[in-house]
Amino acid sequence: MLIMGIDPGIGITGYSFIEFKNDNLNLITSGSIQTDKTAPHPKRLLELKTDIDFLIKKYQPDCASIEQLFFFKNQKTIIPVAQARGVILCCLEENNVVSFEYTPLVVKQTITGHGRSDKATVKMMVNKYIELDQNIKLDDTIDSIALAICHAQNARFKEEIK
Amino acid sequence: MLIMGIDPGIGITGYSFIEFKNDNLNLITSGSIQTDKTAPHPKRLLELKTDIDFLIKKYQPDCASIEQLFFFKNQKTIIPVAQARGVILCCLEENNVVSFEYTPLVVKQTITGHGRSDKATVKMMVNKYIELDQNIKLDDTIDSIALAICHAQNARFKEEIK
Repeated sequence: MLIMGIDPGIGITGYSFIEFKNDNLNLITSGSIQTDKTAPHPKRLLELKTDIDFLIKKYQPDCASIEQLFFFKNQKTIIPVAQARGVILCCLEENNVVSFEYTPLVVKQTITGHGRSDKATVKMMVNKYIELDQNIKLDDTIDSIALAICHAQNARFKEEIK
Repeated sequence: MLIMGIDPGIGITGYSFIEFKNDNLNLITSGSIQTDKTAPHPKRLLELKTDIDFLIKKYQPDCASIEQLFFFKNQKTIIPVAQARGVILCCLEENNVVSFEYTPLVVKQTITGHGRSDKATVKMMVNKYIELDQNIKLDDTIDSIALAICHAQNARFKEEIK
């Protein structure tokens, strides 16, 4: 199963593709989509959509694991982030890729055992599941990898309790 | 100039097409896009996108006038509405239709002279600009007409002060 991890944003969207096979996790690729800060929002949303569509068509994931938003988390950025997230969900659906949603709390709990872990702990634990390239510096990219791992762990658990 | 008015929502999106020519306003058509309440959000977003895309291609508006969102207005629905709005803005951009944004306050001020007017007053005043078909019952459709009129008034004003 190929899982696409997505940490949505209007400025930066982190993404990753993780293969989950024979109980092993393998990072195929990861990166970020960054839109032009000086451009109007509709243009940035189309930039994002074009890139997400390109990635889906290139890697053909079986499913996507995307961060769930909460209005109380960051009130200033919630509207542009939700707009970007809507575009991503629509693009996944258009390409017949099923989306699964996880809150940051559930992701952290799954990866580190604690829902309130800091970014450094998440990064360290992600590194235990998948050896990270040291060039991966962006939190958004690491969060997208954590999201994909979270979905793999969830799928593994569901398989076990069958 | 053909203006597309849009009041975005995940459940109901009101739309209208208004021709603004020789200082006259003429309602070409209006209605609402309603998505399947029981369907998951990605499916509803794609439904919305498909219908918006169909309308743009059919009527070929010169520009769109769309409601601007505020996080404090309705905290419970802000995320799904913003997601729907993102999909609409992206679709407009993809079809090379320029978007203009107006807050409900500015729309009411332009149409009725008061930013805090109630829905009945807005409807009555919209009726003075454009004779409304009595079958138009949905507030979302009327709001989309108000948005289009607001943009026409704005364009008229800009023309005058040139």
